[in-house]
Amino acid sequence: MYPLERPAASVRTPRVVSAVKLLRSAGRRKAGEFLVEGANAVEAALEAGVVRELFYVADAGMRVVELVAQAEASGVLVTLVDDRAAKALGDTVTPPGLVGVATLIDVPLDRALVGSPRLLAVPVEVTEPGNAGAIIRVADAVGADAVVLAGESVDPHNGKCVRASAGSVFHLPIARERAVPAVLDALGAAGIQLLATAADGEIGLDDADDVLARPTAWLFGNEAHGLPSDVLARADHRIRIPIHGRAESLNLATAAAICLYESSRVQRRAGNHVEPIE
Amino acid sequence: MYPLERPAASVRTPRVVSAVKLLRSAGRRKAGEFLVEGANAVEAALEAGVVRELFYVADAGMRVVELVAQAEASGVLVTLVDDRAAKALGDTVTPPGLVGVATLIDVPLDRALVGSPRLLAVPVEVTEPGNAGAIIRVADAVGADAVVLAGESVDPHNGKCVRASAGSVFHLPIARERAVPAVLDALGAAGIQLLATAADGEIGLDDADDVLARPTAWLFGNEAHGLPSDVLARADHRIRIPIHGRAESLNLATAAAICLYESSRVQRRAGNHVEPIE
Repeated sequence: MYPLERPAASVRTPRVVSAVKLLRSAGRRKAGEFLVEGANAVEAALEAGVVRELFYVADAGMRVVELVAQAEASGVLVTLVDDRAAKALGDTVTPPGLVGVATLIDVPLDRALVGSPRLLAVPVEVTEPGNAGAIIRVADAVGADAVVLAGESVDPHNGKCVRASAGSVFHLPIARERAVPAVLDALGAAGIQLLATAADGEIGLDDADDVLARPTAWLFGNEAHGLPSDVLARADHRIRIPIHGRAESLNLATAAAICLYESSRVQRRAGNHVEPIE
Repeated sequence: MYPLERPAASVRTPRVVSAVKLLRSAGRRKAGEFLVEGANAVEAALEAGVVRELFYVADAGMRVVELVAQAEASGVLVTLVDDRAAKALGDTVTPPGLVGVATLIDVPLDRALVGSPRLLAVPVEVTEPGNAGAIIRVADAVGADAVVLAGESVDPHNGKCVRASAGSVFHLPIARERAVPAVLDALGAAGIQLLATAADGEIGLDDADDVLARPTAWLFGNEAHGLPSDVLARADHRIRIPIHGRAESLNLATAAAICLYESSRVQRRAGNHVEPIE
């Protein structure tokens, strides 16, 4: 079988050593690259045309063999690695059979706002990679135009974020901007209203159709502390998800899912959403 | 300060040894008890009146001291433990300052169906405790009447499930039934329609208001495999969450959140939801 024809690279092979450094944020920044783990994510990255290099193990199965062959045919450098090297390249307990090296996918803020976007997800100071990935996945699913990670938010190239996004990091523009006021200014200048999720918001989500129909950026706050008060104050409206039971709140990803779905539903019903040209 | 007046129990103290066994499913079943970790969950368990015993460390802070005093005043056995014992009682990396022993909270299926319920969440073969806990939390938040864990689903008394539910396991009836057909039969007999989440469902969620207005049990499938085909076939309707972007699907908890929120919204708008008497 084709992958077995070549000798396997080890943890000492320079190319593997370089790639392992991408597990850390500083390494990613320096190299301008990040790691993509597993067949599903690698396939999405290949479709997006951002894969530079692939590492794979000999016994990873037919789907990996096919992806490797397809990648190599399109000029991607492919390297068979031994199990120890695969483990070193993965950041999960189970070593992946396939790891890609891809160029960083984040775009400048102004690129995320081109073309009159109607729906954006804006996590502010969100620190848990699984949450950021889940929000990116939901934003993709509802047809949002972009995600803007504002403030000291998690690196979208973090392995756990990429996994949680299930390929969606490669599907829509993702911008990062540390200066939260700059994000809010840019959104306002683009004619996009700011909706903040807040437990004590003045409008209930189930009574907000008129508001939801407008071009919207949803501001989602930190897992533990929510949105900072100055950000809440700058929002056009503070929206609460109505709680009918005895739960005090929802978790970040489920709250974001409900808000983004509702905006998408209302905007499409209002008939003013232009489907992107394929 | 009051907790320091007593000597701390160790990992060898019989009561601690017994409680540590509750970290395992078999131990919980045998004793009919489970562990509740952290101040928030313990507070919810105390309100529900199911706490038998509390273990706490000396330096856990004022809130823990208050909860311990309140529990002791209501007849709960309280025991100061040393740090090693606290670590042994916790199933997180950071040892909790407060761990409670509570009686199991699951109820028989027929108890979960009393009083003409209008909205239920029914995870079928859901295996990830964090997902089960997140679904229970959302069900609570939207005012669902009960949660039924069907088939070989996760134990709701699992520590990760309890934590992910953020106290909601104590807020609404949770039933467990291994025989999935028995669950579907009981729901049908109670006049509750079965809605299955399915990527290729024949009705889009955004076009299902007439359906959603009826008393509903939402069937949510396994994280990897979805719902079994026989369960899909028995559902009154198979509903798809419309995907407008390039994501292939949503994760289980976010999909459940969207479905449950939509049902609650439509049922309340239809005005046929009777609020429970406080």
